[in-house]
Amino acid sequence: MQNFVFHNPTKILFGKNTIPSIGAETALLGKRVLFVYGSGSIKHNGLYDTVLQSLQSQGCIVTEHGGVQSNPLLSHAHAGIALAKKHDCDVVCAVGGGSVIDEAKAICAGALVQHDVWKFFTGKKSIKSILPLTTVLTLAASGSEMNSGMVLTNDATSQKFGFANKHLYPKTSILDPTVTCSVPPDYTAYGAIDAVAHVLEFYFTTKDPYTPVQDRLMEGLAINAMECCDAVLAAPDDYQKRAALMWTATLALNGLTNAGLGKIGVPMHMIEHSLSAFYNIPHGAGLAAVIPGWMKIHCIDQPERFSQFAERVFAIRDGSKEERAAKGVDALINWFTKVNAPTTLTALNIQEKDIPKIAENAMTLAKIWRMRDYSKERVESILLKCL
Amino acid sequence: MQNFVFHNPTKILFGKNTIPSIGAETALLGKRVLFVYGSGSIKHNGLYDTVLQSLQSQGCIVTEHGGVQSNPLLSHAHAGIALAKKHDCDVVCAVGGGSVIDEAKAICAGALVQHDVWKFFTGKKSIKSILPLTTVLTLAASGSEMNSGMVLTNDATSQKFGFANKHLYPKTSILDPTVTCSVPPDYTAYGAIDAVAHVLEFYFTTKDPYTPVQDRLMEGLAINAMECCDAVLAAPDDYQKRAALMWTATLALNGLTNAGLGKIGVPMHMIEHSLSAFYNIPHGAGLAAVIPGWMKIHCIDQPERFSQFAERVFAIRDGSKEERAAKGVDALINWFTKVNAPTTLTALNIQEKDIPKIAENAMTLAKIWRMRDYSKERVESILLKCL
Repeated sequence: MQNFVFHNPTKILFGKNTIPSIGAETALLGKRVLFVYGSGSIKHNGLYDTVLQSLQSQGCIVTEHGGVQSNPLLSHAHAGIALAKKHDCDVVCAVGGGSVIDEAKAICAGALVQHDVWKFFTGKKSIKSILPLTTVLTLAASGSEMNSGMVLTNDATSQKFGFANKHLYPKTSILDPTVTCSVPPDYTAYGAIDAVAHVLEFYFTTKDPYTPVQDRLMEGLAINAMECCDAVLAAPDDYQKRAALMWTATLALNGLTNAGLGKIGVPMHMIEHSLSAFYNIPHGAGLAAVIPGWMKIHCIDQPERFSQFAERVFAIRDGSKEERAAKGVDALINWFTKVNAPTTLTALNIQEKDIPKIAENAMTLAKIWRMRDYSKERVESILLKCL
Repeated sequence: MQNFVFHNPTKILFGKNTIPSIGAETALLGKRVLFVYGSGSIKHNGLYDTVLQSLQSQGCIVTEHGGVQSNPLLSHAHAGIALAKKHDCDVVCAVGGGSVIDEAKAICAGALVQHDVWKFFTGKKSIKSILPLTTVLTLAASGSEMNSGMVLTNDATSQKFGFANKHLYPKTSILDPTVTCSVPPDYTAYGAIDAVAHVLEFYFTTKDPYTPVQDRLMEGLAINAMECCDAVLAAPDDYQKRAALMWTATLALNGLTNAGLGKIGVPMHMIEHSLSAFYNIPHGAGLAAVIPGWMKIHCIDQPERFSQFAERVFAIRDGSKEERAAKGVDALINWFTKVNAPTTLTALNIQEKDIPKIAENAMTLAKIWRMRDYSKERVESILLKCL
């Protein structure tokens, strides 16, 4: 176990009928609110009205910034930052999934500086403070509602970059599983896959040989992400199943799983970011296509770790260590297939000839994330295994 | 899963060489420090000097309040409150185990009011604010370093009461496992038993039938508390093993395990509090004597829950549900025995004739904690099973 600082100050309100509290929670932080949301589906299901009324009932003056898209764009964040500055907003309220929350974080950071917010993503500037942020989550997936990370795509350069900073924790996040009951099966699965991926990245990239506390936590979350996703797909309107999946996804990337692991990497996310930057595919779908190839290659080098995962997560107890490790990877791929996720690049209509371009894009992120052990050739070899 | 609010703002600094940061962390909150510690063992191992120098190097004016005892006393907290008021302290720094931190919390709360701090414990007054608290933890056990609870014994009435309040989270807690390397085997085991007990209480008293996220978290922590304790007892100076045990104990009672479980009880702690109020036995030893009786009775009513625990924590897969449930309880008692903890009242020199007195004392706590399903007769029947 390595030294660490853990300090997650986000307040979570979880459960039924919690959304009408968003006004009071937001008004504690400011009265001139930038209300950030996505494509407008919240206008059809009543969520928009609930949030707006709650904010206004607390005397908030609301400026709207809708239209955030999946894989949110820097250009759209720029527009939000300009709005926040123009209306002198002192708090941001994001209603949506990880994309909306991430763009809102970028706006919170960008609103307080004169330079381009992208400089935070390229490491040329570091965040000193941000506008306070409240969120209402509508998708169990990214964990952004309770963590310090954000991801944005620079549409001018096709770079999907992300990073973490201690100022980026939302102040308050409201999680009402009810609103996720209308998420369709494919996006439900992609969200669960994202949660599983967050576990896999840290579990398999830590160099620390003794992390029993984190291991059990991550194994439990991986099991839950898969079991709860299965339960939700079998009964999409079941509040309890949605609740368990939602809380699992939040805990899968809130800083607790990696506290003590030392330097970890996120190679699968790094490669996937290049896929969704080029092809605008759902993040979870891209992950499902990248993870199998990455794991097939790495389970050979780390049979101990992969066989522990296979045994504890999939109850695979037969065969040699190497065999159990490989069976665990197969079991995971089988689960991706079961929830109808693409498990190859081919299934995403990405061809072998595109691999060099994708790998080259991934290298720009590898540089910023200081993943020095990933060369372009290594990324290409992983992508070839994903075809 | 039930609705919940989760908001744990404590900042954790974990690892080697973190203790010299206590001065800077404390000075962020105040400059007139009440330095609270225990019997003085920290003067022999250098910790006292390290903390004092760190505080003074940040310009802090330090008032000392040593002599906190295990099962900390109200009378001693009164003295600390008087000191804090006299010296106009604006921050408290606690260095010790759960007892020291709990008494420090009582001082933090009592220093800001004119009435007796005990009124908070009896529910006659509620906490509105407290002095900020920093801690340096020296024992893996209670979780007080990252939670909102505190326990104190009223030496005038032999009542050991405790409660939680959102203001009681320490601001910063420093956990350096190195300082726990000198904890003797018995107290190491008692600390691990306390962590296990925190899991058991919530796991077996929740009425919610669907809590898969919390279940896996709690099962993992129970396994870790036992496995890491075994590892530490086999190699007391092994930093890594101490680190895993320390972090396990912190996570076992930081609000995460019970978030979503709805109303939970702490019946084993309730009964144990009466034991340690009368006999001043170590909390973990008292728990080891109470848990077997409580579990033997309750595993009959909840075979589903107890067999899940047996299967996931002790890998017991043979026999009927009822048999697996009972085998799980036996496995836990065997582990208590293995780490040399007393598993009966008799082993603590407590006799059958004392049971009515203990049960009557427990009922005062049952009333305050609103554990209405615990009558004196029920507590007596549990205690009889513990003989």
